[in-house]
Amino acid sequence: MEPLANDILSGNRRALSKAITLVESTRADHRQQADELLSALMPHTGNSFRIGITGSPGVGKSTFIEAIGETIIARGQKLAVLAIDPSSARSGGSILGDKTRMETLTQNEHAFIRPTPAGQTLGGVARRSFETMLLCEAAGFDVVMVETVGVGQSETRVADMTDMFLLLLSPGGGDELQGIKRGIMELADLLIVNKADGTQETLAKKTACDYRNALKLLRPRHAGWTPPVATCSALEGAGITDLWNTISKYRQFLNTNDVLDPQRRAQMRAWMWSQISEGLIEALHKEKTMARLISETEKAVYEGRLPASTGANTLIQTFLTGKQGDPK
Amino acid sequence: MEPLANDILSGNRRALSKAITLVESTRADHRQQADELLSALMPHTGNSFRIGITGSPGVGKSTFIEAIGETIIARGQKLAVLAIDPSSARSGGSILGDKTRMETLTQNEHAFIRPTPAGQTLGGVARRSFETMLLCEAAGFDVVMVETVGVGQSETRVADMTDMFLLLLSPGGGDELQGIKRGIMELADLLIVNKADGTQETLAKKTACDYRNALKLLRPRHAGWTPPVATCSALEGAGITDLWNTISKYRQFLNTNDVLDPQRRAQMRAWMWSQISEGLIEALHKEKTMARLISETEKAVYEGRLPASTGANTLIQTFLTGKQGDPK
Repeated sequence: MEPLANDILSGNRRALSKAITLVESTRADHRQQADELLSALMPHTGNSFRIGITGSPGVGKSTFIEAIGETIIARGQKLAVLAIDPSSARSGGSILGDKTRMETLTQNEHAFIRPTPAGQTLGGVARRSFETMLLCEAAGFDVVMVETVGVGQSETRVADMTDMFLLLLSPGGGDELQGIKRGIMELADLLIVNKADGTQETLAKKTACDYRNALKLLRPRHAGWTPPVATCSALEGAGITDLWNTISKYRQFLNTNDVLDPQRRAQMRAWMWSQISEGLIEALHKEKTMARLISETEKAVYEGRLPASTGANTLIQTFLTGKQGDPK
Repeated sequence: MEPLANDILSGNRRALSKAITLVESTRADHRQQADELLSALMPHTGNSFRIGITGSPGVGKSTFIEAIGETIIARGQKLAVLAIDPSSARSGGSILGDKTRMETLTQNEHAFIRPTPAGQTLGGVARRSFETMLLCEAAGFDVVMVETVGVGQSETRVADMTDMFLLLLSPGGGDELQGIKRGIMELADLLIVNKADGTQETLAKKTACDYRNALKLLRPRHAGWTPPVATCSALEGAGITDLWNTISKYRQFLNTNDVLDPQRRAQMRAWMWSQISEGLIEALHKEKTMARLISETEKAVYEGRLPASTGANTLIQTFLTGKQGDPK
């Protein structure tokens, strides 16, 4: 893996793409190579600012990323844009990381856009995305954005792998629409009401005000940073520079207050344990002798015939003693 | 366990207490008896309305429970009050379920108050509390309330085992105070601003208004029920009857729209799987041969020397193959 690692470090774009394909592969030999490659590159990771971004379809994520991407590159930085969209495997194509929606950025040599990895589970997709982020960092990218439309718990995953989480909203994103998904508002370090142009500008400002008031009721994630609520028009390019300044201010806040490194380390450790949980549950499901017991126990618990804890214990004990060969 | 089960079903209070002590025990033989008892009583559970309640210390939970308890009992119903407070084992005494704070209710034969079970982990405490709830239902209680002060993720646990979740707030619970913990506001099916009396009444109404506005921005848990924000004075008994009517209305809403049973079933199944995760991780930690590897791997991931996924895989594989005896 050494030649490939060196090519990535020297900024070779083809090597990067090859490595990403490797981490996305499900083949056992590829996984082993990917592990080797990542371990070799670890000392060269961590040098980007990691930004997560979510928003409902139609809120203007692609236009926004393109606009802010222009600003980032104008400041001499290299930008990678990744995506987490576990539904795309089923819908046959992701709406995220769609290069046709970020044409200008796609053509810029200082930008790199990658569509979501495929994957059966959100956990699997998130893992591949994060490893891709590590590769991009080793390749010298200064900013890595990870976007998601918000399927299942994908926003939480993206927030858990990034330094800063942005929530993009439409004007009037309150009464008229469905309202934002539970738990998302509180993940955001910066909220942005897009499309603040033309007839929608006043509404956008009112929406921003509503969110500002709502945030006053909540405990912020970090003492010393109340998530701002800004407006912008990605289409017209209005407010974009201010937003990048706010993002830079937050990065400074994280560094100055020695928050960034502890936050990343805690994220990584938490992520390891959640992957262990998922992996053990997956192993339990894969155990052929368990299939029937799982099905019966789940049914009994679901139908209220068996307490959940008794069911859980039965499955754990059977799985673990089965693994030992001798039933207890 | 049959005699004990029958005594519980006939409403024998001593039998109920004995059974609760059994489910709270950590001894393996007690656990087996508890499992037997619970399995026998399962057909007689589910007939209460399960209400969770949280609020910061000082917001008036005990006074509120006493006040609404009076209303419940006046309507001819039997009330059990349980608590989840995993910190009490360390602090040497729970502030919840403290009978001295709910004196009137304690003396009422139609009420049953139980302090939090002890436990090393939130998962353990929650399990015991839920099994206690099942026993109370078998004993014929019509309403079971579970309160928590909000340590760690206890609010989420309580919301996951109840039909309706109440959030109790102080007047001015916004700017002046710390703000409510992230993720809690969105768990609530009903928000109550207490202490709306005397000089605080106007402030309480304003706070209620602020929360109403904030909730407009969020997607409700169930289409058709926007969580109301009410005020009350538990001390003066003002607004308590209205609150019980609202709670009854919600119960009706859940039944009429066929939401209650599916919700409980989904809760139970989800809880079984989260207990399986916790149990498997616990087994991994208990495996003596794993201790050093866990420590080294966690350190490497935490320090950024090893990708989280590689670390996770190493631990999973070692644990599972170790269980099989033959290393792969």
